[in-house]
Order: sequence, then structure tokens, then C-alpha cells
Amino acid sequence: MSEHNGQKKNVVVVGGGFAGVGCARKLAGEDAVRVTLIDRNNYHQFQPLLYQVATSQLAPSDIAYSLRKLFRGDENIDVKLAEIASVDPATRTVTAADGQTWTGDALVLAAGSRPNFFRTPGAEEHSFPLYTLDQATRLRSRILGLFEDADRNPDLVARGALNFVVVGAGATGVEVAGALADLIHDTMSVEYRDLAVTAARIHLVDLGHVLLGPFSEGSHEYAAKVLQRKGVRTHLGVAVSAVRQDEVELSDGTTIPTHCVIWGGGIQAGELAGASGLVQGRGGRLEVLPDLSLDGAPGVHAAGDFANIPGPEGVAYPQLGSVALQSGAWAADNVLADFAGKQRKPFHYKDKGIMAMIGRGAAIAEVGPHRHELHGHIAHTAWLGVHASLMTGVRNRVDAFLAWGTDAFSSGRGPQVLDRSDVARIDWEDEETPEPAAV
Amino acid sequence: MSEHNGQKKNVVVVGGGFAGVGCARKLAGEDAVRVTLIDRNNYHQFQPLLYQVATSQLAPSDIAYSLRKLFRGDENIDVKLAEIASVDPATRTVTAADGQTWTGDALVLAAGSRPNFFRTPGAEEHSFPLYTLDQATRLRSRILGLFEDADRNPDLVARGALNFVVVGAGATGVEVAGALADLIHDTMSVEYRDLAVTAARIHLVDLGHVLLGPFSEGSHEYAAKVLQRKGVRTHLGVAVSAVRQDEVELSDGTTIPTHCVIWGGGIQAGELAGASGLVQGRGGRLEVLPDLSLDGAPGVHAAGDFANIPGPEGVAYPQLGSVALQSGAWAADNVLADFAGKQRKPFHYKDKGIMAMIGRGAAIAEVGPHRHELHGHIAHTAWLGVHASLMTGVRNRVDAFLAWGTDAFSSGRGPQVLDRSDVARIDWEDEETPEPAAV
Repeated sequence: MSEHNGQKKNVVVVGGGFAGVGCARKLAGEDAVRVTLIDRNNYHQFQPLLYQVATSQLAPSDIAYSLRKLFRGDENIDVKLAEIASVDPATRTVTAADGQTWTGDALVLAAGSRPNFFRTPGAEEHSFPLYTLDQATRLRSRILGLFEDADRNPDLVARGALNFVVVGAGATGVEVAGALADLIHDTMSVEYRDLAVTAARIHLVDLGHVLLGPFSEGSHEYAAKVLQRKGVRTHLGVAVSAVRQDEVELSDGTTIPTHCVIWGGGIQAGELAGASGLVQGRGGRLEVLPDLSLDGAPGVHAAGDFANIPGPEGVAYPQLGSVALQSGAWAADNVLADFAGKQRKPFHYKDKGIMAMIGRGAAIAEVGPHRHELHGHIAHTAWLGVHASLMTGVRNRVDAFLAWGTDAFSSGRGPQVLDRSDVARIDWEDEETPEPAAV
Repeated sequence: MSEHNGQKKNVVVVGGGFAGVGCARKLAGEDAVRVTLIDRNNYHQFQPLLYQVATSQLAPSDIAYSLRKLFRGDENIDVKLAEIASVDPATRTVTAADGQTWTGDALVLAAGSRPNFFRTPGAEEHSFPLYTLDQATRLRSRILGLFEDADRNPDLVARGALNFVVVGAGATGVEVAGALADLIHDTMSVEYRDLAVTAARIHLVDLGHVLLGPFSEGSHEYAAKVLQRKGVRTHLGVAVSAVRQDEVELSDGTTIPTHCVIWGGGIQAGELAGASGLVQGRGGRLEVLPDLSLDGAPGVHAAGDFANIPGPEGVAYPQLGSVALQSGAWAADNVLADFAGKQRKPFHYKDKGIMAMIGRGAAIAEVGPHRHELHGHIAHTAWLGVHASLMTGVRNRVDAFLAWGTDAFSSGRGPQVLDRSDVARIDWEDEETPEPAAV
């Protein structure tokens, strides 16, 4: 790899999410550095809007950007498609599933997250997480498939065909519940004339006692009010005991018949963290020093959801797109500092706030480090601004996003395309078969 | 089904392609008629542009329109998602794979086409047809996956990783060959810096002796010139003898190592035609009378690619989107004539011409029944016009299409998203294993 690089330093970046892209963007144009950006997909997925793909508001292509295209103009950045299976921090070498290796003078690990099912029986097998584009299109097809099935056979409604259970009342759970309610009430009720769409039910379950835990009390109440108005039923202080093919069981004894459990119940670091030999902390994430480097592993850095990044008072920063983007770029600066023999700097997060969109026209934004609270349309504008800024970090262009953001919420115009018939197909007959009686 | 219809007549339309949609559009708003439009997908696919999805020029969502959304405003049209497995012409009943049935006072069969492999050994198993959206995304992922594989291991180029073989030099084959050449030369050469993209080869194979057979001699020559300029190698007067996992064999003895054989070699009627008991003609298509009805099966009509529609001199009309759209609408008129006790009319095709796009900026159009021949940019405009007119027949809107059509060809801006990793994954190691020597 180094043969045509001369005296250049190689940086290997694992992961093309916000952190990996933020890192590579920062290193773009650095003449003395050659970057290899490796991801299991050939595209970056704009993770905060996955729920809109799942609910047919956006097309997959709206939030998937070819990594090669993103770095088309950056001569010093190579993109490679590979699933990295292990890391040797001592030699700064990463190895793909097929045995191919890449060694860097510096290594930036930004391999992101995967769902955390907290050992809930049946959850991994039967529920729909929402962390990748693939998962979003699977969920979209399941939702549309259930409406089609119920439309053809209304008896299935009594068997839970139109019951949707969302697990987790964080941003993902609240956003998908709100968007699903809009889809059902504004779109499905018009397009499925034969069907009693009013029989559809959305349940939102969380072990905590408020919606949107990290937000302020005012936002908790606003979210509750908006979801109630949209007909979403909330089950708070309740855990999911089990997920089965055709129902979900809650810790309060409730059983809800359903074929669509959406898992927004939590995330943990990608599997690679466990295959690195590096110290893992909460959520399996790598424990990094305040400057994002790894103690005892010179030249190895971690960023984004893959790392537990110490915040100002010892509390780790949350797993947010903006933390990932900024920490990736910061890691790049520290890599350059290392190369130049300079001091690395501790990560400083520029907090622009947190926000969530609870369906059409109802956003919550808590802006800046002092969490100035906004609700409704003003919050929607702030929400657009923050996402536009995230997208600029990735794409250097926001036109398409803003064009969409300013009018998408006025009509359900996304593509309701059921393109994953494998997921949509439910063998209802099979379920009806009574179990053989015990002798 | 008829309980809330009163005295209304039921029309069952099988297939949501150009013919089925053209038929339903024509029946929309007819107060005395209730239409059930059945398709195996919940979306209409804009078939003439599938090759642009396969070559990353358009996103799948650009050419897939929810059938329910298309007929959202049409109270008398019901859309059902079902795979119809058989037809009983005597009772005008269609039966889905799961046993559900629909019976109409009239039946319009417009179940479209599927690839015809002409019993070529290995073709069905190893080649990539291009007739459905699913097939287009599979092909896209295979093309992108091959570039990724070759980028990681340049030795694979010698094993044919960048050889693409297009079978059939009709519009589909010529269009995909041209678009693929553009993708490779304009996009891949920039985005795969480490790779000798110039080693990529596109082969176009056809049993006939000209490209674009149904076009005029001038167009044959123009197409040959454009493809030659783009580096496409044509093998004319040659058949494909066999398609294997890692090569294709031609009737002249040539063997081309390849993992991507694109099948544009011909189409035949969908399987349903054989399960109808109705008389099948060329390509398995239903033999219809000039008025699109079926002899001996009162109330049954067929349209589009599913039927052999007799033309003015006894020659059947070709399988074109515009023939499908117009014949679907015509069948609707004859259904209404039947209901009113009036005479059915023989189908009259308003010929707007034929056209093909041989990559960026090089279109061929032969306009109107007299085939006024246009090449290049003027033809591109005509091409846009005809497709806009087709799309209006489907969607009642063309804005998105025209916005795309006027600038898409100036830059490769489509989404190069490899989202079907099952298709992209090739076990190169496995192939290298030498076969055990015979004892």
C-alpha cells in the first residue's frame, strides 16, 4: 500500500458514519497524509432520518450517499468496501472477514453501534431495530405488508395485524411513533378505503417514567401531549418481557398481539469493539482518553458511538450524530498532532442542542448548552438547521435536504414501496393452526 | 365484494404495469363501475427506465410509484396486493396464490412479461435480466460489487471481474450497454483511483446482424458508431451457447470470463398466461381479437405485453410501453361498451414512434408512423417527450421526470448504492479451487 506514497503517513479509518466521515473530511487535502476509509457498505447512511424511510416519508436514496462520491474530489482519500473483523492495536492493523489487512501509522476506530436487546427473549429474532438503512427498508416493507394483509382480510385486524409496538421512548422511539401515527391517520386512512384504519393502534413502551428522558420536563410533557393527540398509547415504567412472532409481553402482564415490534430500546458498540482486545465500558464502547486516544495503544484513536467519550464532568457524551461528527474531526486533528510531534488536545464538544421530531409540525428543540427550549414550528426550523449542519459535515451540500425539509411535512409524499417481500410475508395460516392437544 | 356496490359492475384488472394502469385510469370516475386493480407489487414500475436504476443513474424510488397513491383520488378504484396464480375465463374469476378469489363482470388481463431465456443453459441461473425493479437493484449491486472486489484485489481483473456481457441488442441491451459505458468511463474512472478502470470491457451479443433491429438502417449505423466510440465490443450474428458462474460461451467458440451477464435477450408473457387455459401465441402471449377481447371468453380482455395484439397488416404490435398504455385504456373503453350493450371497437394504435438512448447525449428517435429519423440532442428531446407522455398516462404529473431528464445526463449523480450484498458477494476463493483430477 505504501509503495506509491513516498514519505506519506497512512491513516486507516474504520467506519463511514458521522465519525468516520468527519475524520476523513478533516484529513482531506492534507498532502502528507493518505487515508483509507473502510466501511461494510459503499455508502454513508444519514442515521437521524432512518425513521422517515421506515415510515415512507423519505426514499432510501435520500439518505444514502456513496462514500466514493463524497470523497470524489479528495485525492488523498481511498474508500474500501470491507467488513473489518478484528483489530490489532499493537501493530495498528485491521483485518477483514476475508483476511485482507490494512496497517496505518494511525488508526481511527469509528465502527458505530448496533441494537442492544438487553437479552430480552425473542427481541433479536422477532423485532425490527432501526439503526441501518437495511433495517429501515425491512421495517417499511413490514408496515406496508401488514396494511395490505389486513386490507385483503379484515379478520386479521382482530389478530393484531394493525398493532404496532415501539420499544423505547428515546428520540428514535418517539420519532418513529409520531411518524407512524401520521402515516396511518393521514395517508393510510385515505388509501385503504375498505379497511377500518381507525382500528390501528400504536403502543410506546419504556422502562422509564417519561418520554425523551434526556430532554427537559417541559419537553417530556409536550411529547406526551402530542403523542396522545396522535392516538399513541404509552406504557411507561414497564419493561418488555418477551417478543414473539405474533405478540409482545410486557412486565405488567399485558400481552399485545402484534407482528411489528419496533426496537428503539438501546444501542451498544459494534461487534468489532469486542474483537479489539481494547478496554470496553458502558454499552461495550471503547474507553478513550479525553483526547480520544486509547490508553496503552499509541496511534490508536476512537470516535463516535464506538467510544465512551468523557465529558466535562466525567459523564460520557451521549450517542448523537453531532458528537460523532465532531469527535471524528477532532480525532483527525490529534492524529495530525501526533504526526507533527505536537501535543494532542482533549475533545471539546460544541453543543448545539438536542432535538426530536414528533411527527408532522411537532418538533422539540433544546438549543445550545443551556438547553433553550423550543416547541412546534420554531423547533422544526431549529431541527432543520441542526440536520442541515450535520449534512453539511457529510456532503458539503444541503440543497436537497432543505428542499425536502421545507415541504415534506405538508404532505405524505414519500414512496410507499414494499420492496422487501421476504419481510412482508407473514404466514397467517400457519399461526391459526391449533396446537395438538396434549394426550 | 358486491354487497356495497349496489347495481355497479365490477371490473377486475390483473397487473399494474402500463396496460393495467392505463385501463384503470380510463375507468376512474365511471360511477357505474367498480374496479379492482391487482398486482404482485404495491407499486407501478416505470419499466423503460429500469436500465438507469441498474447503472446508478436513477434511484429505485424515482421509477416506483405506489399504486394506492396513484389512485388515491379515485373512489371507484380499489388496489389489492396479490400474486394471481390462475384464471377461470368461464366465470371471470382470478385466484391468488393463497386461494383468495376475485370475480368480475369483466376481466382485463395485463400481467406483463418475464424474461425469455430460450433454454440457454445456465442463463436463468447465472444471468441478470432487467425487467423488474428488483432485478434492476440486483444488477446495480452486482456491478458495484464487482468494482469493489477488483479495487481490493486487482488480480481479479484478469479473471473477468470487469467484463460485462450484455445479451440482446434491442433497446434494452443497447441502452444498458451505453449507460454502463458512461458509468465506467465518466464515474468509475474518477472514483476508483487505484484501479485500472480502462481494463473494463463491455460486450454486446446478438444473434441478429444489426443493433436495434426494429429501427431504420441509419439508426443501426448510428447506434453502432456511438457504442464503438464508447468502447463497447459488439458480437453480431452470434448466439450465447451457455452462461456459467464465471464465464459466458458464444456460438462462435469465444469464451468471455465474466460475473455479470445482463440478459436483454427477449421476453415472454408472464406465467399466468399458461394458467389461464386461453390460447397462447408467440412469446406465450394471449391471442386476442382486434378489439382486445378473447375469442370464446365473453367479458375477458387482455392488453399490453400479455397479449399478441393484431396490427394493421396482421403483424402483432411490438411490446412497447406506449402500446401497453394505449391498449389498456382501449380495453377499458370496450369493457364499457360491453356494459352499455354497444359494439366493441378494434384497437387503433396512435404511433408516436420508437426511440432509444445510447448513453449520455446520444439518443435515437424515429418519430410517428412514418418514422422520421432523429439522432443526438434533438432525439433526446423527443425521447423525453415520449417518456413524459408515458409518465403522464401513469401519474398525471411529469415534473420530477422532466427536472431529472433535463440535467441528469450532464453528470453521474444517481445513487451508487450497493444495497443487495447477497448479490454482490462472489466467492472468488471457491472458484480458484482446482477441480479434482480424474483418476
